[in-house]
Amino acid sequence: MSTLLKAPAAQQTLQQYEQIRARTELICQPLEPEDTVVQPIIDVSPPKWHMAHTSWFFETFLLQPHLPGYQLFHKQYSYLFNSYYNSVGSRVQRDQRSTLTRPPLRDIYAYRRHVDEHMNKLFQQLEEDKLEELLPLLQLGLQHEQQHQELLITDIKYILSTNPLLPVYKPQPQPAITTTPSKAIFLEVPGGTYTIGFRGEGFSFDNELGVHEVLLQDFRIMNRLVTNGEYMEFMQDGGYQDFRHWLDEGFALVNNQHLEAPLYWVKQDKEWHRFTMHGMEKVNPREPVSHLSFYEANAYASWAGKRLLTEFEWEAASQLYPPSPGNFMESGRLEPTAADPANQGMQQLYGDVWEWTYSAYHPYPGFTKAPGAIGEYNGKFMLNQMVLRGGSCATPESHIRTTYRNFFHPDKRWQYNGIRLAQ
Amino acid sequence: MSTLLKAPAAQQTLQQYEQIRARTELICQPLEPEDTVVQPIIDVSPPKWHMAHTSWFFETFLLQPHLPGYQLFHKQYSYLFNSYYNSVGSRVQRDQRSTLTRPPLRDIYAYRRHVDEHMNKLFQQLEEDKLEELLPLLQLGLQHEQQHQELLITDIKYILSTNPLLPVYKPQPQPAITTTPSKAIFLEVPGGTYTIGFRGEGFSFDNELGVHEVLLQDFRIMNRLVTNGEYMEFMQDGGYQDFRHWLDEGFALVNNQHLEAPLYWVKQDKEWHRFTMHGMEKVNPREPVSHLSFYEANAYASWAGKRLLTEFEWEAASQLYPPSPGNFMESGRLEPTAADPANQGMQQLYGDVWEWTYSAYHPYPGFTKAPGAIGEYNGKFMLNQMVLRGGSCATPESHIRTTYRNFFHPDKRWQYNGIRLAQ
Amino acid sequence: MSTLLKAPAAQQTLQQYEQIRARTELICQPLEPEDTVVQPIIDVSPPKWHMAHTSWFFETFLLQPHLPGYQLFHKQYSYLFNSYYNSVGSRVQRDQRSTLTRPPLRDIYAYRRHVDEHMNKLFQQLEEDKLEELLPLLQLGLQHEQQHQELLITDIKYILSTNPLLPVYKPQPQPAITTTPSKAIFLEVPGGTYTIGFRGEGFSFDNELGVHEVLLQDFRIMNRLVTNGEYMEFMQDGGYQDFRHWLDEGFALVNNQHLEAPLYWVKQDKEWHRFTMHGMEKVNPREPVSHLSFYEANAYASWAGKRLLTEFEWEAASQLYPPSPGNFMESGRLEPTAADPANQGMQQLYGDVWEWTYSAYHPYPGFTKAPGAIGEYNGKFMLNQMVLRGGSCATPESHIRTTYRNFFHPDKRWQYNGIRLAQ
Amino acid sequence: MSTLLKAPAAQQTLQQYEQIRARTELICQPLEPEDTVVQPIIDVSPPKWHMAHTSWFFETFLLQPHLPGYQLFHKQYSYLFNSYYNSVGSRVQRDQRSTLTRPPLRDIYAYRRHVDEHMNKLFQQLEEDKLEELLPLLQLGLQHEQQHQELLITDIKYILSTNPLLPVYKPQPQPAITTTPSKAIFLEVPGGTYTIGFRGEGFSFDNELGVHEVLLQDFRIMNRLVTNGEYMEFMQDGGYQDFRHWLDEGFALVNNQHLEAPLYWVKQDKEWHRFTMHGMEKVNPREPVSHLSFYEANAYASWAGKRLLTEFEWEAASQLYPPSPGNFMESGRLEPTAADPANQGMQQLYGDVWEWTYSAYHPYPGFTKAPGAIGEYNGKFMLNQMVLRGGSCATPESHIRTTYRNFFHPDKRWQYNGIRLAQ
Repeated sequence: MSTLLKAPAAQQTLQQYEQIRARTELICQPLEPEDTVVQPIIDVSPPKWHMAHTSWFFETFLLQPHLPGYQLFHKQYSYLFNSYYNSVGSRVQRDQRSTLTRPPLRDIYAYRRHVDEHMNKLFQQLEEDKLEELLPLLQLGLQHEQQHQELLITDIKYILSTNPLLPVYKPQPQPAITTTPSKAIFLEVPGGTYTIGFRGEGFSFDNELGVHEVLLQDFRIMNRLVTNGEYMEFMQDGGYQDFRHWLDEGFALVNNQHLEAPLYWVKQDKEWHRFTMHGMEKVNPREPVSHLSFYEANAYASWAGKRLLTEFEWEAASQLYPPSPGNFMESGRLEPTAADPANQGMQQLYGDVWEWTYSAYHPYPGFTKAPGAIGEYNGKFMLNQMVLRGGSCATPESHIRTTYRNFFHPDKRWQYNGIRLAQ
Repeated sequence: MSTLLKAPAAQQTLQQYEQIRARTELICQPLEPEDTVVQPIIDVSPPKWHMAHTSWFFETFLLQPHLPGYQLFHKQYSYLFNSYYNSVGSRVQRDQRSTLTRPPLRDIYAYRRHVDEHMNKLFQQLEEDKLEELLPLLQLGLQHEQQHQELLITDIKYILSTNPLLPVYKPQPQPAITTTPSKAIFLEVPGGTYTIGFRGEGFSFDNELGVHEVLLQDFRIMNRLVTNGEYMEFMQDGGYQDFRHWLDEGFALVNNQHLEAPLYWVKQDKEWHRFTMHGMEKVNPREPVSHLSFYEANAYASWAGKRLLTEFEWEAASQLYPPSPGNFMESGRLEPTAADPANQGMQQLYGDVWEWTYSAYHPYPGFTKAPGAIGEYNGKFMLNQMVLRGGSCATPESHIRTTYRNFFHPDKRWQYNGIRLAQ
Repeated sequence: MSTLLKAPAAQQTLQQYEQIRARTELICQPLEPEDTVVQPIIDVSPPKWHMAHTSWFFETFLLQPHLPGYQLFHKQYSYLFNSYYNSVGSRVQRDQRSTLTRPPLRDIYAYRRHVDEHMNKLFQQLEEDKLEELLPLLQLGLQHEQQHQELLITDIKYILSTNPLLPVYKPQPQPAITTTPSKAIFLEVPGGTYTIGFRGEGFSFDNELGVHEVLLQDFRIMNRLVTNGEYMEFMQDGGYQDFRHWLDEGFALVNNQHLEAPLYWVKQDKEWHRFTMHGMEKVNPREPVSHLSFYEANAYASWAGKRLLTEFEWEAASQLYPPSPGNFMESGRLEPTAADPANQGMQQLYGDVWEWTYSAYHPYPGFTKAPGAIGEYNGKFMLNQMVLRGGSCATPESHIRTTYRNFFHPDKRWQYNGIRLAQ
Repeated sequence: MSTLLKAPAAQQTLQQYEQIRARTELICQPLEPEDTVVQPIIDVSPPKWHMAHTSWFFETFLLQPHLPGYQLFHKQYSYLFNSYYNSVGSRVQRDQRSTLTRPPLRDIYAYRRHVDEHMNKLFQQLEEDKLEELLPLLQLGLQHEQQHQELLITDIKYILSTNPLLPVYKPQPQPAITTTPSKAIFLEVPGGTYTIGFRGEGFSFDNELGVHEVLLQDFRIMNRLVTNGEYMEFMQDGGYQDFRHWLDEGFALVNNQHLEAPLYWVKQDKEWHRFTMHGMEKVNPREPVSHLSFYEANAYASWAGKRLLTEFEWEAASQLYPPSPGNFMESGRLEPTAADPANQGMQQLYGDVWEWTYSAYHPYPGFTKAPGAIGEYNGKFMLNQMVLRGGSCATPESHIRTTYRNFFHPDKRWQYNGIRLAQ
């Protein structure tokens, strides 16, 4: 064994591990213990659970099978903090996560310490070739934790929003610059054959594999996201009442739930305000609209005489138009920001808000599930969900890729989801 | 005006009109009045409602706008028998159709007579060019009535099946021939560019338009449908209990509803029987399995080490392999029949059971909705549903096409839905 | 055996049997077959079911055990038409009664004929002493059928009311006489010991037995029912919005279901109308208010500065004040009628509307259930329901007694339920 | 003003105030912050909410109206911590109490300090006659806080029981003494006129007023509570499966929820264990059975060939048989204890478990609600609930009286509810 030889790869991964693990705790730092245990809707998991579950992932898939002599931190944690892996055994039902008032928050931090120390030991002890063999699993664990970082942010936002005191998560790092309007431009994408799916080095999820070609027709893509101001025009024009723009199930939802604006919007003194991570604020018409369901995004597109993109069109366009710098989790803003009116090129393709596409989340040709528990990661969710692309202001910058496929049911609004149009 | 000139086109359409309208009543002939009013689940409409709604369609879209001086049969029928056309006005909510104990069945027949007489008058009075102009709408009305004929059959089956007396709809026209097993063969379909969508003369729905090319990879397609016998192997092998084969939401459904067999299957004296239009009978292992959800079809495919086709693959294969004669509504069997063991070519592509595809029911490129109420026919349902292809034993033969896209939510089982595999 | 000897008793009972059985069919005579099969809410049973279930009662408890050689009309009818007798075996679940589209209505009539003929045979064949022994059971069957006559009327009313065509059950036998207002008078009932429960000859239900004494304080009782006009004052005074008058669960119900008037009331052209057995008509302020929940009755009493009676107070008052002629089912009006303004004595104590009391439906001291299935008749419902007294315009006149205890859950409104006040 | 004169009364009340307020915090002392915010079912309120709500009561009804210059601790707390007083204004909906992750626990303690300091100031400043005038309200506030102490204990038990780790609230203060069986004796209570309701000095709730006489028949009352051992005989005899012993709605509940034992009972290694405040322990057959619904209590009584008492019988018996020392909250056991086999007199009439009576919680004759918000305390709940008598091991000893009427819906099991029989 030579620690010298393996140093660079191991050191780099270890550093990444430490950064990502630390970030998770940084996100939870402003919370009270009570904030970390509740589950106001089934979609929103308790922050304490996220912190434990991401550690459980490393313990279950790395430490237990690969660190000789590893002792579980607590023999029941696998039952408590397994999310949906049938292969790993039974678990707390998803809608019962708020029953976990114990273990208390300090125990979860101790659990994280325990896992981190042993992961460090694993890095130190592992032969270089063995380490290389485990790298995909390690990377999966880190990407998994990054996904939960985004969920932590959206779940914290939801939890705080249900509190009548409307608590501030963190003051805004810097006041948003009021910009002049940015005129939307439609950029051309020529039809033809495009290659879809992940081909590069490095990490990708299994749902991006199955590289294949698709035939696209000519189309044009909006160079920025749809703004709050544009969306308010739709609202003022009676968009929520006009059945012609809605999918049937979307219109039923609008009527049953009396929807008339994006999630988190509240009319105060005749003006629209919205709950943000920095408290209630007046809606800024220059900023991208977010917290929309697919139904709302699609109705808006219909009202505007345009349409949403497919995920293939989105990926093709992203191949033609290189990304501008995005607004990601690391900025600390945690809310979308206005486009640059001076920039007539492609903007906001990454970060700010996830962009709903009119593509169902289905397997790519040749998709195969990994054997064992890891095979449950993505494949079993490939129905009834729609693909979103591009990441949001809650996505870690290193987590997103042009081939990245996010997916949610079309009625979900608690993520930072918005609209980019095609025609 | 020249009745001579217009005769052939008008006469042919009139004849078609009369045949289709008569068929609807033939389907309802074995029913008691009480059978025609209940709605055991929201999916299943009362037969009386189907008979009235199909007449309402002609009255609303043909007679009212185009027959001068036409008087409505009853001024409230538009409210009673509108299905889902917001453009036409308010209506009885879909789950409230069993409130319509009045008008009684004889009034519905009178309504049909009234509409038929005036449609006849319309045929007689219309100038040839005007008739030609109305032909698409007329055709839509007839295709619409054919769709409801299939729904009538599946809804009647469901209604009778909930009755503890398990009534027979009609005795079997001829006993099913017990066949020897038919070995499944996988036929090759070479990859390449295929043209999808309706290009011919004659009628198609708007969801088939938007002809476009798709790139497919090589695949192989099973030459017949999956049988009851094959499906029972899956059941005996613990298929309903093995989470590895199931989409997550499908497995939840299986567990919440305690599913262990297709709809209508009941174990009696340790043997599987099923409710058919001819009463309870022992499951015949040679016949195609039907009344499956998409989840069951997909789980079976996974267990068999195969997969479902996409709707594009299905349509490509249908271009290569010409159809054999199918088992349609007109045969009067109203249950799927066994494949021919002597035939090694493509079989059962049309008729018998609809084949679930792993394609979401989304708009084709360039899809546009017609203006007005007719635009509500298809477009607003293009989410959360899966495409099925090929027609069933309850489909009128003249109704099906290679480009025909049927669609249902993935959990629906009361249609004649089954499985064809690809690999 | 001597037919001469038994003649009077048997003849009288037979005559009663024939009259009551005929009345049931008379009630159903205006219905279409489709009216007789639906079940719009769980409380409302299909009329066809009522007709069969009352026959099943005689078949199960009289013919099967007591008529030698009796053959069941149909071996599955016991499963189909048992209401809630666990002792008799399994049955169609209460909320599944609309699945019984078969047997068709004509079979139910045939079933009734079959039972009637064999009951006649039973009357003819039975020895006098045996007949006497069976009289209580026979009487129970007849009283049972009378109870279902009242339910038939209220269920038919509900079924027709849900139909958008608002069908008329029967035209009004004679136009309601518009009366001058009747001033309410409060009659005195002195405190003291009263004997409660059935002591007379003839039939009573087991829930009226357990004669016992109660101590009452002085109170006063209104000499007529509360009218629509008085109730509208409560409504206009914001009664449905003022929480102070409501029991907590009642106020929740009012808000969740957006209640603002009695069942069947609809505002048309700014005036209150109500659905009656004779169609929609303008609310008559002189007539007794009906179709109220206990919550509404109690809130009205609170608003009026009065209270409801207990069932013991009601029974005590009925001992002091002899009944005036009542408006019962036999009048054919089937809606409550105005009090006589000239009559300053007790009015409307029987008939018109059932009067909600503030007494829970609990067993009287010493209550015991009969052995076997008949023991399930009343006892198992003695919780969570409130006692009503006095009968309604849908009650057969021979069915009601001063000791009769009717009972419904406090939220039920589809019966003819109203208010009499105490202070 | 003379502090000398008022000293004794004020000092005594102040002392009582301090003791009761301190006890509430002592109850919560073993909890983690996360334990104090969740609401697993609507009946169970977050402990943090209980602590705040009891303080809100003093602030709203004592400090705000009667302490000159009092400043609210926080202007939104009235919205957050009002339970059900419509008169006081809008409030957090009852099922939304777990949204209150903020204010954090330490703020609630600060709120309690603030209220306590100002209550102390109120005691010091108030003139003697004014103090006397406020004493009923003060007493109501203290009794109210004692009620919430009992709820705190039962809610904490429920919260901990839903946690898969089954946390121990506190170790048992002393091991339960295993006793020899105590033979049940039925003590005689002669029939006659008994006076019901509160007549003494000191505090009572409004629902105990309205003193009145009732006539009772002779009966006999069991001298101790029904034990776990006796209840297990019922279970072993198929009691949960035998419909004859159940009220209809109770039997439906048993079947829908698959009940087969009291709440908190779990079969481990073929032996019944139960979750207690001291962790899981084997069921002790000598201890009183608890955590039963009314339905279970009544079914047991039927199986045993006995019946439950009415609340009047209970109160009459308690007048004849003086109480033995009871097992109350102060003992710290917080679980019921076995009866003394040597004692043949009346036992366990107070403390241990509340005793379900077959009496609906209705107003006594002449019951009137207090004007204003205090009038909402009891009256609006007087329907659909059953009276329980005698207090439990979670009831403060100074809180219970012979005339005390507790009340819960008949399906509730999370309180310490048990059985005493009559015959």
